[in-house]
Amino acid sequence: MAKHIYKQVFTSFIFLSVLLNQSNAVSSFRNLAKPCKRFVVHLHNVAYDGNNTANATSATVVKPVGLGDFSFGNFIIMDNPVTMDENYLSKPVARAQGFFFYHGKWKFDSWLSFSVVFNSTKHKGALNIMGENPFMEPTRDLPVVGGTGDFIMTRGIATLTTDLIQVPKYFRIKMDIKLYECYY
Amino acid sequence: MAKHIYKQVFTSFIFLSVLLNQSNAVSSFRNLAKPCKRFVVHLHNVAYDGNNTANATSATVVKPVGLGDFSFGNFIIMDNPVTMDENYLSKPVARAQGFFFYHGKWKFDSWLSFSVVFNSTKHKGALNIMGENPFMEPTRDLPVVGGTGDFIMTRGIATLTTDLIQVPKYFRIKMDIKLYECYY
Amino acid sequence: MAKHIYKQVFTSFIFLSVLLNQSNAVSSFRNLAKPCKRFVVHLHNVAYDGNNTANATSATVVKPVGLGDFSFGNFIIMDNPVTMDENYLSKPVARAQGFFFYHGKWKFDSWLSFSVVFNSTKHKGALNIMGENPFMEPTRDLPVVGGTGDFIMTRGIATLTTDLIQVPKYFRIKMDIKLYECYY
Repeated sequence: MAKHIYKQVFTSFIFLSVLLNQSNAVSSFRNLAKPCKRFVVHLHNVAYDGNNTANATSATVVKPVGLGDFSFGNFIIMDNPVTMDENYLSKPVARAQGFFFYHGKWKFDSWLSFSVVFNSTKHKGALNIMGENPFMEPTRDLPVVGGTGDFIMTRGIATLTTDLIQVPKYFRIKMDIKLYECYY
Repeated sequence: MAKHIYKQVFTSFIFLSVLLNQSNAVSSFRNLAKPCKRFVVHLHNVAYDGNNTANATSATVVKPVGLGDFSFGNFIIMDNPVTMDENYLSKPVARAQGFFFYHGKWKFDSWLSFSVVFNSTKHKGALNIMGENPFMEPTRDLPVVGGTGDFIMTRGIATLTTDLIQVPKYFRIKMDIKLYECYY
Repeated sequence: MAKHIYKQVFTSFIFLSVLLNQSNAVSSFRNLAKPCKRFVVHLHNVAYDGNNTANATSATVVKPVGLGDFSFGNFIIMDNPVTMDENYLSKPVARAQGFFFYHGKWKFDSWLSFSVVFNSTKHKGALNIMGENPFMEPTRDLPVVGGTGDFIMTRGIATLTTDLIQVPKYFRIKMDIKLYECYY
């Protein structure tokens, strides 16, 4: 009898472990101490000035409205190259496609929403980043709210750092992307 | 004693199964091979030309800025009917409310964000779709990032196909919506 | 022997309980009957009229396009204070930064997307709300699609109620925010 129980317990244990592994797999995706995917990429923005069509990667579509001195209302659409290293001339692995606008009255401040669309040998698919981007701060966290392809259903955090500004036309942003929900 | 243990093991097993069922239910919502909800609907867009107020369902609010030849900067706000079949005259089951804009310099390309707001006998509630929409491709996957009502907390993928274009005013998009996280 | 089994069962049970607690923790976050966080805050919007720079908290950046009589195309960028009570003069605990626009042809209707950026002793971090906002309805549910800081990876529902309108410049919105996925 005791042996029988032992077997049963053991079998139950195996069975439960399998179930637990399944449910735990979901649980572990949410380990915020350890992203399931992490990579650093660099975004390059070249503002359109009316004469640089060949180089421009973004353009103001709505001009500031005069509320304060920090470009409130300036609305920019971008289709920016994203590279693995900091070099603007490196082959892009992705494009950052979306928009941002200025909304600060007493300081420079922006809000943005864009897709990082990967088309490299390593990644196919896109992820979406959106939210408040107080770009005068050294680093800013923004949520990753969704994705497609290799990044289907993903979520996480993108930490943005503006590490090079060449007024008035060029800036570069380092994006440290940490995903906490992954399926591939 | 052995019988007592047996009972205890059995009880534990029942207890654990109940817990596992709960946690497993969460796990199963994430089965990407099998959406928990799936439906195909059709979006109809009629562009405003200044004289078609009765029929128009969308309007350009910002005109292209002259960067390239593919309408870069054109920004459109929409309130489009969504039907179950392809017929523009069918009774709408939902409205697609939001915006899209053009951001391609060397080709036509767009980015969009909108809510699909259902108000039918079958569904009440909305889901939100956003992201890069390279509409010259035959099909495009976009993330569903959230929802309300029947679609509270939902996530998934919407596959978009432009299956009819009547330049310059009308286009129709088939939306194959696959939800992988459902609560109702 | 029986005692040995008993110990083993007991140990397994403890071990499994720990695992289950972990996986269950995830499961319980999804309990839609009981938010893991809930709070009510009040958003104050003062429209810019060209002469009220000191008080204005939002500004029209694109004017209506003439499609219908309900401001279709009116696009507003906001940086609105958010307070714990209804008093506009109370110390803000957060700012609501983002945009909204009108898209109704036969009635007033809007769509919005913004971050609620907390900077109080109680909360640091932001959450993102987006979607259809039919503001002529007494209350509207909008999805919370992501967050950062104290609200990292959060999701939920924000129920909006416009409880004071002083035409043409001021309105106040009560936001009842219910989060169903929390990590802090």
